[in-house]
Amino acid sequence: MAYNYHFDIATSSRGKILLKLIFKWKSSIWKAIYGELIVWCMMYFFISIIYRFALSPDQQDGFERFVQFINARMKYIPMDFMLGFFVTIVSNRWITQFGNLGMIDNIALFTSAYVNGRDEKARNIRRNIVRYCVLSQTMVFRDIHFGVRKRFPTLETMVAAGIMMPHELHKFNDVKTRYAKYWLGFNWALHLVNQAKKEGRIEGDIPRDAIAQEIKNFRTGLQLIWTYDWVPLPLMYPQLVFLAVHCYFLLCLIGRQFIIRPEAANTTEIDLWIPFMSIIEFLFYMGWLKVAMDLLNPFGEDDDDFDCNFLIDRNLTVSMAAVDDSYDDLPEIKKDIFWD
Amino acid sequence: MAYNYHFDIATSSRGKILLKLIFKWKSSIWKAIYGELIVWCMMYFFISIIYRFALSPDQQDGFERFVQFINARMKYIPMDFMLGFFVTIVSNRWITQFGNLGMIDNIALFTSAYVNGRDEKARNIRRNIVRYCVLSQTMVFRDIHFGVRKRFPTLETMVAAGIMMPHELHKFNDVKTRYAKYWLGFNWALHLVNQAKKEGRIEGDIPRDAIAQEIKNFRTGLQLIWTYDWVPLPLMYPQLVFLAVHCYFLLCLIGRQFIIRPEAANTTEIDLWIPFMSIIEFLFYMGWLKVAMDLLNPFGEDDDDFDCNFLIDRNLTVSMAAVDDSYDDLPEIKKDIFWD
Amino acid sequence: MAYNYHFDIATSSRGKILLKLIFKWKSSIWKAIYGELIVWCMMYFFISIIYRFALSPDQQDGFERFVQFINARMKYIPMDFMLGFFVTIVSNRWITQFGNLGMIDNIALFTSAYVNGRDEKARNIRRNIVRYCVLSQTMVFRDIHFGVRKRFPTLETMVAAGIMMPHELHKFNDVKTRYAKYWLGFNWALHLVNQAKKEGRIEGDIPRDAIAQEIKNFRTGLQLIWTYDWVPLPLMYPQLVFLAVHCYFLLCLIGRQFIIRPEAANTTEIDLWIPFMSIIEFLFYMGWLKVAMDLLNPFGEDDDDFDCNFLIDRNLTVSMAAVDDSYDDLPEIKKDIFWD
Amino acid sequence: MAYNYHFDIATSSRGKILLKLIFKWKSSIWKAIYGELIVWCMMYFFISIIYRFALSPDQQDGFERFVQFINARMKYIPMDFMLGFFVTIVSNRWITQFGNLGMIDNIALFTSAYVNGRDEKARNIRRNIVRYCVLSQTMVFRDIHFGVRKRFPTLETMVAAGIMMPHELHKFNDVKTRYAKYWLGFNWALHLVNQAKKEGRIEGDIPRDAIAQEIKNFRTGLQLIWTYDWVPLPLMYPQLVFLAVHCYFLLCLIGRQFIIRPEAANTTEIDLWIPFMSIIEFLFYMGWLKVAMDLLNPFGEDDDDFDCNFLIDRNLTVSMAAVDDSYDDLPEIKKDIFWD
Amino acid sequence: MAYNYHFDIATSSRGKILLKLIFKWKSSIWKAIYGELIVWCMMYFFISIIYRFALSPDQQDGFERFVQFINARMKYIPMDFMLGFFVTIVSNRWITQFGNLGMIDNIALFTSAYVNGRDEKARNIRRNIVRYCVLSQTMVFRDIHFGVRKRFPTLETMVAAGIMMPHELHKFNDVKTRYAKYWLGFNWALHLVNQAKKEGRIEGDIPRDAIAQEIKNFRTGLQLIWTYDWVPLPLMYPQLVFLAVHCYFLLCLIGRQFIIRPEAANTTEIDLWIPFMSIIEFLFYMGWLKVAMDLLNPFGEDDDDFDCNFLIDRNLTVSMAAVDDSYDDLPEIKKDIFWD
Repeated sequence: MAYNYHFDIATSSRGKILLKLIFKWKSSIWKAIYGELIVWCMMYFFISIIYRFALSPDQQDGFERFVQFINARMKYIPMDFMLGFFVTIVSNRWITQFGNLGMIDNIALFTSAYVNGRDEKARNIRRNIVRYCVLSQTMVFRDIHFGVRKRFPTLETMVAAGIMMPHELHKFNDVKTRYAKYWLGFNWALHLVNQAKKEGRIEGDIPRDAIAQEIKNFRTGLQLIWTYDWVPLPLMYPQLVFLAVHCYFLLCLIGRQFIIRPEAANTTEIDLWIPFMSIIEFLFYMGWLKVAMDLLNPFGEDDDDFDCNFLIDRNLTVSMAAVDDSYDDLPEIKKDIFWD
Repeated sequence: MAYNYHFDIATSSRGKILLKLIFKWKSSIWKAIYGELIVWCMMYFFISIIYRFALSPDQQDGFERFVQFINARMKYIPMDFMLGFFVTIVSNRWITQFGNLGMIDNIALFTSAYVNGRDEKARNIRRNIVRYCVLSQTMVFRDIHFGVRKRFPTLETMVAAGIMMPHELHKFNDVKTRYAKYWLGFNWALHLVNQAKKEGRIEGDIPRDAIAQEIKNFRTGLQLIWTYDWVPLPLMYPQLVFLAVHCYFLLCLIGRQFIIRPEAANTTEIDLWIPFMSIIEFLFYMGWLKVAMDLLNPFGEDDDDFDCNFLIDRNLTVSMAAVDDSYDDLPEIKKDIFWD
Repeated sequence: MAYNYHFDIATSSRGKILLKLIFKWKSSIWKAIYGELIVWCMMYFFISIIYRFALSPDQQDGFERFVQFINARMKYIPMDFMLGFFVTIVSNRWITQFGNLGMIDNIALFTSAYVNGRDEKARNIRRNIVRYCVLSQTMVFRDIHFGVRKRFPTLETMVAAGIMMPHELHKFNDVKTRYAKYWLGFNWALHLVNQAKKEGRIEGDIPRDAIAQEIKNFRTGLQLIWTYDWVPLPLMYPQLVFLAVHCYFLLCLIGRQFIIRPEAANTTEIDLWIPFMSIIEFLFYMGWLKVAMDLLNPFGEDDDDFDCNFLIDRNLTVSMAAVDDSYDDLPEIKKDIFWD
Repeated sequence: MAYNYHFDIATSSRGKILLKLIFKWKSSIWKAIYGELIVWCMMYFFISIIYRFALSPDQQDGFERFVQFINARMKYIPMDFMLGFFVTIVSNRWITQFGNLGMIDNIALFTSAYVNGRDEKARNIRRNIVRYCVLSQTMVFRDIHFGVRKRFPTLETMVAAGIMMPHELHKFNDVKTRYAKYWLGFNWALHLVNQAKKEGRIEGDIPRDAIAQEIKNFRTGLQLIWTYDWVPLPLMYPQLVFLAVHCYFLLCLIGRQFIIRPEAANTTEIDLWIPFMSIIEFLFYMGWLKVAMDLLNPFGEDDDDFDCNFLIDRNLTVSMAAVDDSYDDLPEIKKDIFWD
Repeated sequence: MAYNYHFDIATSSRGKILLKLIFKWKSSIWKAIYGELIVWCMMYFFISIIYRFALSPDQQDGFERFVQFINARMKYIPMDFMLGFFVTIVSNRWITQFGNLGMIDNIALFTSAYVNGRDEKARNIRRNIVRYCVLSQTMVFRDIHFGVRKRFPTLETMVAAGIMMPHELHKFNDVKTRYAKYWLGFNWALHLVNQAKKEGRIEGDIPRDAIAQEIKNFRTGLQLIWTYDWVPLPLMYPQLVFLAVHCYFLLCLIGRQFIIRPEAANTTEIDLWIPFMSIIEFLFYMGWLKVAMDLLNPFGEDDDDFDCNFLIDRNLTVSMAAVDDSYDDLPEIKKDIFWD
């Protein structure tokens, strides 16, 4: 789950924020790019050593002209614009996905309020309505979220976890279709609502429809999630941005070499051996790319990705508490302290 | 249908992602631009050879000045800004269109829940309500999606595919109007809902209205799709961006030639014959333009375009399953495993 | 009406798209700027000839310094940023306006479904409900759309076109207020719905409210359109962008002259007489400005502007067909071909 | 009220548009910046004269170096980026505020349609429902709009204007709370709707709720307006942008001086006395800042600000006409001219 | 609470606005960055003094080359693009959070209108419905807002403040779950609404549902707030932007030193000792970063952060007034002054 830095920002003194933000490891920029950076540096030094020690002066001259040729044309690659606009687009996608992960609360609260009865069947109906919604949510998450897929590799594991019951799995498998059956759980939930109405546990059309509308909203959000997975942004766009950054730093391996011979046209001002300005540049652009890739697919297992397993557990627990334990369990009605 | 790269990103190790993202062919940037790139390179080499071998020194001098003149003014064309902002606008359009393609699920689930009866007529009514919606959707797609048009060149082919029935086609053709009749299927669906209510299969106004609202939402989404097709972005805007990129690289054919005579004012640092930096530039800008064009019209037959034929089949199958096979077919109500 | 290029993009081979997109005339960038370009070129050549033939060497020297002074400062005008951000803002406005032009379909379908009866009065009521909505829409369009204003210069012409009837115009004129009476048609429509309910043609509050809600949505969309017209973007913003582009190219008339005397500090690399790089620049920036102006007011009569006259006719025809001809005219209910 | 330039753009020939857009004074860029420009020019000439006539050659040399120092570093201030992004943010804010100013039409039309009766009390109830909404709107506007505050400095002036009645003011003042009482008018309106229902003037829960929902929507829009006023964008942001532009042109006073001594390293190409390129730059950047400030607070009294006084009057007049004069005043139902 | 500068902008003369905007201290840019600026200046002068007085000419030469090396590469850090796009993203987040803080008014007004009765129990029910909503809101704010957490460190302090009553706290603690119990208050509110209906204080399903929908909307807004806190923007993104700005100015400490030896290749035009252009740059970029950080977490205790304690008090007071004191307390119905 994502490290929540809000509290740090809100409460620390300035200096501490600076240190905390910079020297964080988990889900940090450092962790994201250190691998690439090490590889890049090793390649840089390899070329550097060749240039300094292995080449003849004539070859050095040719290399220096090549360096100059490349370095003068680095700005042909519009990384700034690509990254800026691309991150804006994928962050909007990220926010939309995040806003539709599906909190069960509205369904649970309305089920609790509108489906009456303390008998076993009433309790069961309420519990099943919300459980069927979590069941469908879990099925969607299994197909798009790496962590949920790992937790529930088969439907049987969902039965073991209590999200589904054996006879429900049986029924589920009876429905034959080559398309995903995310809708089935919702169908059960809606027909259960219907049955509750028929048995008088829901009084009237309006409460029934209110619950149905919430189930629909929940389902529509999940549908958005899986259609976003069904039709991703055209591969070309992330590929292009990805290539641009990697291509740029590949060229930097040559173009940013220190030129040590004073007779060259492009002798570097000072020979530092370590191209620290390019390393800084690497940090920011490669880091920016990592942000883009991170936002592009939040259903993986990175530190920052959505914790869908947590969400499933939370939805199950909270909804059971709301529809059963706290059903019609009001505090006594008393005068509050502002009563005049 | 679009290649889905999310799973790759989520699960592969870093090195593999890099390779997978870069060396993908289908719906990749490579596939999109290789044709243009080859043409461009051939033209470049043609000019290069003329300059090197066919021109007299005086002509070479003139050519070199011309090269310098152009190269110094390449930045007159604001490709970065145009592409960045244009892609943002068309990607918003793309997302809106994508979000309104029309999933039948809400209509199907509400029809299943609110239209009662196991007799043949009830089943027929439920099946027809959802089929009429898919029918209208198919008609919209026929007019805007190239692949659907190819699949259903005439209304008769829709009858053959079972989306429409012969007597319905007859009725459809009876309605004479010079405007598209997308609304007709929805009119049938709504009157069918009405009839179901009159026959007592729908109990009360609220359920009827709930189904009608879902039909309306579905229709409004499709309306958005075809009005987006009716009024495209003013032609000028894509034309401008398209021209900018092509004009830029046409100028590059001259402006990026290697200048080989040392007496020229703009002798290139090193003569490589292959303008690989310009080729890289070509890759990124032309690729960016392809992204824009791809997003501008997602109803074609590119690898990344919306797969509307799949959607029609899926809607038909899923809705039939939901309203008929799974109608009121609940799992037995039992205590779940969290029951205390 | 806008030229629809989607089909071209979707179906043509690459080369053809290029040619079609570039050599289109109607609503093209060429048509939009050729006038300005000719004027600009004539002014450029006039100055050029003066500089080359009419000035003394001393005057030429002064002119050359002036050219250098201006050319070195052209980037003081931030056209890129202004155009990019401005076009983004106006294109959002354009999309919002476009999305609220008002399709009558929802009102028509609900009126058809919920107002019962085949007798003359019932048919009249249904027809009038939708006609009154189109009537109000036409009144809004008359005040903001140039083409609709031309078609209906007076309310009498609306009567002649059948959108209004003489006794309705009389009633309309009876209402005295100094504010626009767009609401009046909707008031009639709503009271007509009321009357239909009183006469039992609409059964219950829910159907009545469903129609009323659609009328309200239609009206709210139109309200947005005319309030966008009432409060435009502050004049300053388009004025600023407009000025920036024109000012820039006015300065180009001087700053981009070919400097022909070798003793000048800024002798141009080569004397081509025709400033083709600046012409290309002109094409792109002036074209971008045209895109902005086009999007800023889509209610004019340009090739790309919204075709509101078409919309009025379409709304009238479609809604009449939906509420009258196709009222309760269902195809016979039969088993579809997927019936097992 | 804002000058509406849409009509000009739509109907004029090109040349006229150019002239009209450029030489407009009211709410123009010229009016917005002429003051600052004059002050800036005077300061510029003052420094210019000191440099040219008052300084010794040594002092001139120092000044010239200082000019060079500053001019080479002007781009340290990222005005382009700041203004571009800031204007985008504030223009979104502006559009949201504008879209929630509150048109009374929906409330008025629903009140007219759903509250029955031609007797005096019924008419009074209808009139009061809409008047109470306008009353609350006026109270909100009084607190955020400068012009409305000037028109209604006290609640008594609202009574004088007929928006409130004396006994209502009395009641209003009876409610003691240290928070704004914008909600009170809406409370009255809702209870009035209740009373109308109790007296049988509104038939059923659905119509009552329909009116209540419209009142709620109207109120929620106004709430958004005043919460935007309650929590403005953090002061820092506009302050930063404001400072950037002013700081930039303060530095220009030095950095853009004409350097007249040929022995200086940065002698200007030509001595024009008037820094017209910097004046042009001033025009565009200062103008852009004015656009930002204008959009940031549209509730002032600038030419472009929202005309809330007009809106109050319009709402009052239109709603009275809709609920009273045109109550149930339908044109006779006749066959329209398309009747076959 | 944020300083509201709208009134200043709207009403002051130009000169005054300038002064007010610039010389404001509270929640100003000056206050935000003065600390960092002082530290930076001290470090700059320390290095400056070392360079000027402590180094040998050879060391000075090396330092000067180092300065030149860095200064030529400062643009490797794309601060402009990062800050511009980042601030756009976080400002959208900020606006969304702000729009969902939760105003109780709609719930209060509907409770007041739809729950009847002047007896003690009715009054208590109305008061409790709204109080339970504020209670849940307070619980959410306690977990994300620093100031609310300080005010209510324990639930007992909420009891002391009257937001909760002792027996309610008891009941609250009885519900055992490891997830946040924000939903519990809403569950109570909904069951209270149910009870009111059962006792006939709410007449019919529609009013009950109307209140329930408002409670749901309020809760959904709060849910958005706490899920935004649950899943922040990936840490990497703010970290990256934060690092970029700090890294840039760290490099400036070297790269922007005045080079005083004339024999250096990069001798500064003039030795001013104070790097005022870099200080100005520091002001704008560091200020921009502060804006970003401020918008990123508006639930802290900065001058500009949301004043959630105020909101809780206001919601409690206003809702009590609306549901109790002003319940069904209408002004007498009289003819308004526009009555003809």
